[in-house]
Amino acid sequence: MLRACRGEPVDRPPVWLMRQAGRYLPEYRAVREGVSFLDMCRDVERAVTVSLQPIDFVGAEAVILFQDIFTPIPALGVDVDFAPGPVIADPIRTRAQVDALRSPDPRESVPFVFEIIRELRRQLASRDIPLLGFAGAPFTLAAYLVEGQGSRSFSTLKKMLHQQPDLLRALLAHLADLTVDYLNAQIEAGAQVVQLFDTWAGLLSPAEYREWVLPGHQEIAARVDRAGAPLILYVNDGAHVVDEMVEAGTDVVSLDWRCDLAGVAKRHGHRVSLQGNLDPCGLHASREQIFERVRELREAGRPARGHVMNLGHGCLPDTPVDGVRAFTDAVRALDPA
Amino acid sequence: MLRACRGEPVDRPPVWLMRQAGRYLPEYRAVREGVSFLDMCRDVERAVTVSLQPIDFVGAEAVILFQDIFTPIPALGVDVDFAPGPVIADPIRTRAQVDALRSPDPRESVPFVFEIIRELRRQLASRDIPLLGFAGAPFTLAAYLVEGQGSRSFSTLKKMLHQQPDLLRALLAHLADLTVDYLNAQIEAGAQVVQLFDTWAGLLSPAEYREWVLPGHQEIAARVDRAGAPLILYVNDGAHVVDEMVEAGTDVVSLDWRCDLAGVAKRHGHRVSLQGNLDPCGLHASREQIFERVRELREAGRPARGHVMNLGHGCLPDTPVDGVRAFTDAVRALDPA
Repeated sequence: MLRACRGEPVDRPPVWLMRQAGRYLPEYRAVREGVSFLDMCRDVERAVTVSLQPIDFVGAEAVILFQDIFTPIPALGVDVDFAPGPVIADPIRTRAQVDALRSPDPRESVPFVFEIIRELRRQLASRDIPLLGFAGAPFTLAAYLVEGQGSRSFSTLKKMLHQQPDLLRALLAHLADLTVDYLNAQIEAGAQVVQLFDTWAGLLSPAEYREWVLPGHQEIAARVDRAGAPLILYVNDGAHVVDEMVEAGTDVVSLDWRCDLAGVAKRHGHRVSLQGNLDPCGLHASREQIFERVRELREAGRPARGHVMNLGHGCLPDTPVDGVRAFTDAVRALDPA
Repeated sequence: MLRACRGEPVDRPPVWLMRQAGRYLPEYRAVREGVSFLDMCRDVERAVTVSLQPIDFVGAEAVILFQDIFTPIPALGVDVDFAPGPVIADPIRTRAQVDALRSPDPRESVPFVFEIIRELRRQLASRDIPLLGFAGAPFTLAAYLVEGQGSRSFSTLKKMLHQQPDLLRALLAHLADLTVDYLNAQIEAGAQVVQLFDTWAGLLSPAEYREWVLPGHQEIAARVDRAGAPLILYVNDGAHVVDEMVEAGTDVVSLDWRCDLAGVAKRHGHRVSLQGNLDPCGLHASREQIFERVRELREAGRPARGHVMNLGHGCLPDTPVDGVRAFTDAVRALDPA
C-alpha cells in the first residue's frame, strides 16, 4: 500500500474500500446496536473493533480509522448533531461567528481519536496491514457549517461565495489550519497513510474549484508530514476537476467512479498515484463480472506510477457483502506485475 | 432561438432559463397558491399563465411549457404521486410489471398538455418568442419507476442494471417509444423547440452511459420530427459524458454548469449548438458580476455554431429575481456578432 501510494514498484495493486467499516456489514451493525453514532466515535474499544472488521470479514488490505469528518468540529465551539449527516444548530453566516471559532489542539480536544489510532497500531503490529487516518477537507466542512446541513445545491454556501467572499475565505483558512493539525496529530499517533475527503467540492465549476478549493488542498499537501504518511485526495463527483485535483500535489488522487481511470492514468499517472474507482453499485454484479471489472480496472490503472484498488465512492448500506468479498478476491487473484 | 439551435448566424445568443416558470417568482407562487402540483399541470389557464410570466417579469426570450416530466406516466398504468418529486406506489421490479405497461396515445391520455401548447401559441402569435416543449428521458423516467422515488445513489436501479439487464432494457425501450410519441405530439400541437431532460443519467460512468443511455438518445434524435422542431439534450451533472452527449446527434447539447463551455465549444461546437451554462447559484452575485460572467460565457461559447444562453441547471426556489433579470439584461446588452 505504502509503495503503491509513493509510486514504487509493486506486484499488484493493494485493495481497500472507502467506508469499508459500515452498515453493510452485519458484524458492524451488531457492534453499533443501541449506540449513537457520536458515542461510537468516542468509544475506543468499539471504534477499534469495527475498524478491524473489514480485514477478516471482507479481505481489506488496509484499515481506516472509524471516525467522522466532523469529529474535530465541536471543539471549535460549534454545536453539531448527527441526523445522520451533520446538522449545525447555529450555521455560520457572520464575521463574528468566524472570529469566535477556537483553535484547539486536537490532541487535547479529541484525544480518543489518537487512542484509537495507537490501539489499532498495537493490534496491527503483527500483520502487514497499514493504518489510514483521514480528515474532511476545508470546503466540505465549510459547506455544512454555512448551510447548516446537507443539501442538493448548497445555495446558502454559494450565496456566501458570491456575496461575502472574504468571510468564506476566513472560514476556509481557519479550517485548513485545523485540518493540517488534525492530520499531523494522526500521523504522530501512528497513521501510516492519510486521506483528505472533499465531499462537496465537486459542486463547483472548474474555475470556481480552482479559486476556492485548490489553494486549500495545496496548502494541506505542503504542510502535512508527508514523509510520515503519504496523502490521498478524494473529491466526490469530481470527474470534471481531475486536472485540478492533480495540481494539489498529493501523493495519490482518488477517483470518483464517473472518472475515466484509463484516461487519467495516461494523462497524469507519471506524477501521481491513483486510487479507485469501481462504482459501489457495481458490487451488485455477479462474482464473474466483478472479477472481469477488476481486471479492466487493473489494466486502466497500469500507466500510473501506482494504483490502489478501491471504489469510486464509499460502501452503501445496501452494498452486498459477497460483492465486497468478490472485489478483494479479484484483486488478490490478479497476475503479479 | 431557432437559428441559434440550428447553427445559423445570429447577432447574439438568445436567452431563457431552465425552470424559469418556478417558485422563485412571486407571481408564480401567487398562481400556485392552494393548488396542488398535479392540478397545476392539468389546469390549462393556470399553466398558460405561469408559462408566460417569465417573458414580462424576468425578460426570457423563449417560453417553456409548464409541466412535469412525469405527466405522461400515470397513463401507462403506474400510480404516481408528487411529494414533491415523483413517488411510485408500486415500483417496477418485475417482467410482468413491464409487460403490463400500456402504450396510450398521449394526445388522448394527456390532452391538456396539447391544449396548453395550442393556447400558448395563440397568445405568443404577435410576439417573436418561440415555445419549447419537453420530455423526461427514458433513463430518468426508469430511474424513478424502478427506485420508487428520488435517491442519492439510485442503487435499486443500478442493481437491476447488473442483475436484470434485459428487464431494464425492456423498460427503457417502452419509455423511448413513449418519449418519441409525446415529443412528436407536442411538435404537432405547436412546440417549436423540444428539450429532453435526463436528470439522472449523470449517475453513470462514461462506459455505462454509452451502454444504457446513448442508444435511447440516438433513437429519440432519429425519430423525433426535427424538421418541425430542433431537439436539445440536457444531462444533469453530465460533465463527464459530454463527448457521449454530442454523439446522440441532437441539434443542441445543454451543458451542466460544471462543464467547461469553452473546451466543449472548441472540441464539438462545429457539429452541435450549445446551451448554458451559468450555475443558478451564480445569480446571487452582483449585477456587475453577472454582466461580466455573461460576457465570459459569450466568449466561451463563440467557437460553437450556435449558443443559447441559459443556466447549467434549473432555477432554484431561492434564486433571486433581480439576478435573473440581470442575467437576461446582460445577454441583451452583448455587442452584436
